[in-house]
Amino acid sequence: MAVNFPAIDPAQLHPVAGVTLGWAEANIRKPNRKDVLVMSIEAGASVAGVFTSNRFCAAPVTICREHLALGKGVRALVVNTGNANAGTGEPGLLHARQTCAELARLAGVAPEQVLPFSTGVILEPLPVERLVAGLPAALANLGAAHWYEAAQAIMTTDTLPKAASRQIVIDGHAITLTGISKGAGMIKPNMATMLGFLAFDAAVAQPVLDTLVKEVADRSFNCITIDGDTSTNDSFILVATGKAGLAPIVSTDTPAYRALRDAVTEVAQTLAQLIVRDGEGATKFMTVRVEGGTSVSECRQIAYAIGHSPLVKTAFYASDPNLGRILAAIGYAGVTDLDVAKIDLYLDDVHVAKAGGRHPDYREEDGQRVMKQSEIAIRVVLGRGDAEATIWTCDLSHDYVSINADYRS
Amino acid sequence: MAVNFPAIDPAQLHPVAGVTLGWAEANIRKPNRKDVLVMSIEAGASVAGVFTSNRFCAAPVTICREHLALGKGVRALVVNTGNANAGTGEPGLLHARQTCAELARLAGVAPEQVLPFSTGVILEPLPVERLVAGLPAALANLGAAHWYEAAQAIMTTDTLPKAASRQIVIDGHAITLTGISKGAGMIKPNMATMLGFLAFDAAVAQPVLDTLVKEVADRSFNCITIDGDTSTNDSFILVATGKAGLAPIVSTDTPAYRALRDAVTEVAQTLAQLIVRDGEGATKFMTVRVEGGTSVSECRQIAYAIGHSPLVKTAFYASDPNLGRILAAIGYAGVTDLDVAKIDLYLDDVHVAKAGGRHPDYREEDGQRVMKQSEIAIRVVLGRGDAEATIWTCDLSHDYVSINADYRS
Repeated sequence: MAVNFPAIDPAQLHPVAGVTLGWAEANIRKPNRKDVLVMSIEAGASVAGVFTSNRFCAAPVTICREHLALGKGVRALVVNTGNANAGTGEPGLLHARQTCAELARLAGVAPEQVLPFSTGVILEPLPVERLVAGLPAALANLGAAHWYEAAQAIMTTDTLPKAASRQIVIDGHAITLTGISKGAGMIKPNMATMLGFLAFDAAVAQPVLDTLVKEVADRSFNCITIDGDTSTNDSFILVATGKAGLAPIVSTDTPAYRALRDAVTEVAQTLAQLIVRDGEGATKFMTVRVEGGTSVSECRQIAYAIGHSPLVKTAFYASDPNLGRILAAIGYAGVTDLDVAKIDLYLDDVHVAKAGGRHPDYREEDGQRVMKQSEIAIRVVLGRGDAEATIWTCDLSHDYVSINADYRS
Repeated sequence: MAVNFPAIDPAQLHPVAGVTLGWAEANIRKPNRKDVLVMSIEAGASVAGVFTSNRFCAAPVTICREHLALGKGVRALVVNTGNANAGTGEPGLLHARQTCAELARLAGVAPEQVLPFSTGVILEPLPVERLVAGLPAALANLGAAHWYEAAQAIMTTDTLPKAASRQIVIDGHAITLTGISKGAGMIKPNMATMLGFLAFDAAVAQPVLDTLVKEVADRSFNCITIDGDTSTNDSFILVATGKAGLAPIVSTDTPAYRALRDAVTEVAQTLAQLIVRDGEGATKFMTVRVEGGTSVSECRQIAYAIGHSPLVKTAFYASDPNLGRILAAIGYAGVTDLDVAKIDLYLDDVHVAKAGGRHPDYREEDGQRVMKQSEIAIRVVLGRGDAEATIWTCDLSHDYVSINADYRS
């Protein structure tokens, strides 16, 4: 049921020098599925991440932050699906540490050089024995060309693996960027997505990479919502292996930084949009653009009110141009001094509302025509400034309810 | 599909001296249904209201505020269903004024003494001719015993009429309170509900009534949510006819005020809860109580995050004790200094989470037992203060999607 999800050719997911990937079927929650991923990173890479703003952050998120802060370099990521290791208290932290320690032992690195990630059901103990038992198999099949299988290994309610890759040239050096992501529900990232991992072979100094990961997250994973539920496990990680031979990027004020940032952003946006296209029960892909605001933050606030409204989302599911629901969402978004008499609303090229009321030329059949499409742009013009923001979201269907009423069964 | 909706006996809806009610079938949107209500109020009553905080407030809300501010006394309310007269710009305001003028002319009062209310589809022109044409019929059948029919006349996607009534004694005088409400979707009132009208025959000075209506709304209609969508038309009105012979209540610091306030609150809570019990597609009625906060506002914030989460709501629909979803909602509610290690979670009497993690004695079958009930209490203890808040909400089912995907067809 994914919406215009592009076919992903495993052969087009270019290996990134310095990174290998291996998976295991560790029986974490269900048998016969890839549910453990190990990403091995050669020494010398820089790694940066952003994580969920949920106060109930998962144990692995806490450990990731701790290990990154130590600055000892990252040599491996380990991901399990089927269990979020969230809401698990002190035992959850011990399990995450134990996972790192065991992988470190097997891989010959330090435990602090391992970053753990989990995704799945919250509030259940992590079956750490099964996870640890799966690590040797994952290490045994490490390979540079395993990005597609890696994308499969991090899926939960996703119906399709999510990956993107591109190559650019900076200062005469070919740079390869490849990433994977997962997520289909509990999606309203606030710092990052459920899980996203993106590696490239440019060399980037740590402080610059720390900036880059935030800039990119704000333009990609922080611009999507499926159901407004910010997960406990959101993590987005950038790995810069430095194997391409390009001189290290040590400043954000360079053409090389900007070229890299644009390419990373493009791959990350693709990965983020793939999550929405595969949103639980999604049948429509909606771009919500709010323009003419006094700040990006108020534009985002309004865009998210629209993107979260169950009434807006069900109207899109039904292809019903019940567009007053969008005005209602704009009105309750919390921008308290909003002058609704200045607001215009467009659906693709159709001018629905002008100056806060129905446009005199608006005909319901024009709204209907756009609503029937699988890709729809909602554009709101606030008429009070120059700021703008765009988010991507999907509709709310019967299948969303079915999936989430049955998720654990 | 309403959840434990009590049978309402029309004979138990006591007339309130000084108020009569009449309805019409005016064909506003669909034929053969009561869709216009007139409430006639004898001279000398005081009337107060609270209205939506949605910036896209409907035209009748604007006119209500204007007429109440003029302070000329209120002699009639007029309500139509089938069209919200919201997102209708200047013509919408003219239509609302025209409605008041016409009713005033027919009833022999001033236009400023009429309060208009609309509920239904947003962004479509109000068919004011049909509304006005229905007024004589509504006036012709005015009666004191018509509260049940009045409740029917304001229904939209409601499956059942909502009304409540009680009698109390204050200072030796029998006081009667009767009210009606409507609403089933686009329910997250913020100042008031979709529509609620509550009359009683005590006399209350205007400034005291202005305080009372806010106090009551904050403890009733402002404590419910179905889908988190704050409507453009929310209005809650108190009518104090003063016909019971009790001396006017001129101060909030009197036993008579407190007795009245408690009784009005009780009726208003019943009316508010009836809205949730008849929530679109509802199969479960949930009480979310958050205790131990540093402020009522943070407790409400967390309670609403739980009450709005599509993942929490679908889990309850499925009777699936996937209770980590509640922790996730607590975590993203926006209380940035929340210490999750202090949080306890209960489902009725079942202690699910202790100190931020799964309670060691928690057994999934106990959670399952509670989840299967049609009435469920979720209790969150924050462990950081003495404040508390309670809201009422319902689950998210396939029928919610069906109803809102089909609402206009």
